[in-house]
Amino acid sequence: MDYKVFKNGGVTTPRGFKAGVAQAGIKYKGRYDLALVVSEYPAVGAGVFTTNKFQAAPVQVSRQHLALSEKMRGFVVNSGCANACTGEDGLADAQMMTEISANVTGCKAEEFFVASTGVIGVPLPMDQVKQGIEKAGQNLSAEAGALAAQAIMTTDTMAKEIAIEIEIGGEKVALGGMAKGSGMIHPNMATLLGFVTTDAVITKECLQKALVIANEDSFNMVTVDGDTSTNDTLVVLANGQAGNALINNPDSEAFQAFTAALKKVCIILARMIARDGEGATKLLAVRVINAPSREDARQAARTIAGSNLVKAAIFGQDANWGRIICALGYSGAQFVPEDITVSLGDLLVAQDGRGLIFDEVKAGRILGKEEIVVTVDLQAGEFAATAWGCDLSYDYVKINADYRT
Amino acid sequence: MDYKVFKNGGVTTPRGFKAGVAQAGIKYKGRYDLALVVSEYPAVGAGVFTTNKFQAAPVQVSRQHLALSEKMRGFVVNSGCANACTGEDGLADAQMMTEISANVTGCKAEEFFVASTGVIGVPLPMDQVKQGIEKAGQNLSAEAGALAAQAIMTTDTMAKEIAIEIEIGGEKVALGGMAKGSGMIHPNMATLLGFVTTDAVITKECLQKALVIANEDSFNMVTVDGDTSTNDTLVVLANGQAGNALINNPDSEAFQAFTAALKKVCIILARMIARDGEGATKLLAVRVINAPSREDARQAARTIAGSNLVKAAIFGQDANWGRIICALGYSGAQFVPEDITVSLGDLLVAQDGRGLIFDEVKAGRILGKEEIVVTVDLQAGEFAATAWGCDLSYDYVKINADYRT
Repeated sequence: MDYKVFKNGGVTTPRGFKAGVAQAGIKYKGRYDLALVVSEYPAVGAGVFTTNKFQAAPVQVSRQHLALSEKMRGFVVNSGCANACTGEDGLADAQMMTEISANVTGCKAEEFFVASTGVIGVPLPMDQVKQGIEKAGQNLSAEAGALAAQAIMTTDTMAKEIAIEIEIGGEKVALGGMAKGSGMIHPNMATLLGFVTTDAVITKECLQKALVIANEDSFNMVTVDGDTSTNDTLVVLANGQAGNALINNPDSEAFQAFTAALKKVCIILARMIARDGEGATKLLAVRVINAPSREDARQAARTIAGSNLVKAAIFGQDANWGRIICALGYSGAQFVPEDITVSLGDLLVAQDGRGLIFDEVKAGRILGKEEIVVTVDLQAGEFAATAWGCDLSYDYVKINADYRT
Repeated sequence: MDYKVFKNGGVTTPRGFKAGVAQAGIKYKGRYDLALVVSEYPAVGAGVFTTNKFQAAPVQVSRQHLALSEKMRGFVVNSGCANACTGEDGLADAQMMTEISANVTGCKAEEFFVASTGVIGVPLPMDQVKQGIEKAGQNLSAEAGALAAQAIMTTDTMAKEIAIEIEIGGEKVALGGMAKGSGMIHPNMATLLGFVTTDAVITKECLQKALVIANEDSFNMVTVDGDTSTNDTLVVLANGQAGNALINNPDSEAFQAFTAALKKVCIILARMIARDGEGATKLLAVRVINAPSREDARQAARTIAGSNLVKAAIFGQDANWGRIICALGYSGAQFVPEDITVSLGDLLVAQDGRGLIFDEVKAGRILGKEEIVVTVDLQAGEFAATAWGCDLSYDYVKINADYRT
């Protein structure tokens, strides 16, 4: 796929999108914790949400609005409080966030997605949230995408945003995205907040279909700690300002091109999330090749990337391939143990299901890098998948031992 | 169940069992790393083994011997090397360990179980192993149970052994056990090495049946890090020296009594393993009650006990019940989110699926103890299950960041 990456691009890069932020003081002081992103034009929306049985209030409201509204206008997001396990009051608060957003922008409440991230079980301080949304609404600008990406952070150490441009039928189409991750990150759906904007002209049905496909190979292949959050949300808005011919057929080339671009944006954000996992010092990419099915490849890759023992070994730069083999063995994937090959970077460390004598100095050099690629060849078929994770460090424990205070 | 606990009891407490140990120098220096346990009389044996697709060589040999032999005589165990992913040579080495054990005791190779624990993928130094087994065989004694429990340790910080006595049909029956755990501990099967001896008179079929039942509610409910090992082995030998009437009917009271006793031994050892999980500072017991099915209760309890975020919060003594709720939500168990109640010790922290305002000082006191009991009431049925785990500490990361050296 040919694409251009915008310098400093984000959710306000596609035409017709503006963002506003505020320091609402929900939990954090002296930093942005509220973001409002709005399309100047009616847009179609799509979303995928957590599979956790406890669905946070904003997730419930966003699902409802997506079902109710043919057109969407934006999303409102706060950090510092997840508004999860907060009962009827929490639902009313999430609903209220969309109403305030609607009032300040002259739209309807059901045209807004809402997302929250932070501590579970604590009610939102609605006075501060209200003031924050109003302030954000008064400061909408096409330059504030980067501030919005900052406002949605919790324990993230860096803002995560990207924008790319592709051509569809000769027209330039832009896609911009931002995400927050860090903890409670485990595939099943994204286990994070992700927001994508685009000026593509596309139907609601095709947009949803493209999002599901893009999500499967990106956010759903990230794991930080095996904990699937109550608040996972990935939404996309397409406001049709690019002027391309309407994408309304999932079998068309245009749909394929758009989906590939959406997947690219999601993969870039997903990798950023893995790299910035709580306490992470390294990005771990696990590639499983020659699997008998797509599901076997995905399952094996995710299980290895999620193994505490593998992650601790990566942190310690220890070429303990036995743990990779062990995780593969309990992943549930189908393969013949005696056929397995494992490589760290380009160094073969196990073959035919058993260890090789390898160059420990070279292994140390590979494991000393900031990005570690583990390749596992199942020699059992033609399917492949990549999962992204990070190492398990002292700081993960430190961050999570006393998160509420 | 009425039972007596032996002071300093272990695998040589039941009549007719002897143990011998040696410092073979396989990996560790200056400590016992090889144990041989033998029954003076032919015994029936039973075993359950790892479900990992990579089955270490000793697991494969033990399975074979259990299938081949009507009677067993003992088991040989080494620490410091797992003999896993070692190909045909590894299988020959495991087989050789049983042959040397047979030679030194005057029995047959197929009458021995064999187990290994330590690093994956490294071949056994067979010269040292051979000398170790021979030395252990020359020093067999009914007093060496405690030394055997030490010899099988890897990163365990304490030896794990227990022996109890019950009465079956007026006869005193003893059961003794030892186990090692620490890392790669996750239910599916025991994910550890466990060895139980008994002088009960029981058929091979009944012994296997009792072991499967006992294992389900004990070792299979322990999790330290979510990693199911390649070497998990739990075996039991019954040499019939107690003189009770033969237990040959799974519907009999005698079978129930024996199974309850075996389960008790396994639960005591399983709790010791959880408490001594790598880097653990606390034992975490998660009890799920009023579940709609046994499997729901088990699944929910194991998922909560296995959540990195719950474990890190327990380490930090932080009453972050939202993470308990979150883990319950992705466990796959069936329940209605609005009906859930969560208690830490006897302190109710969440009700109707949402948080309560609770006494943080009291919560701190409860979380300051060495054993933390979390109770989750699903209010959806009559089934219950308990899972055991431990907290996630800096030391877990430290131990596992550089395990091979």
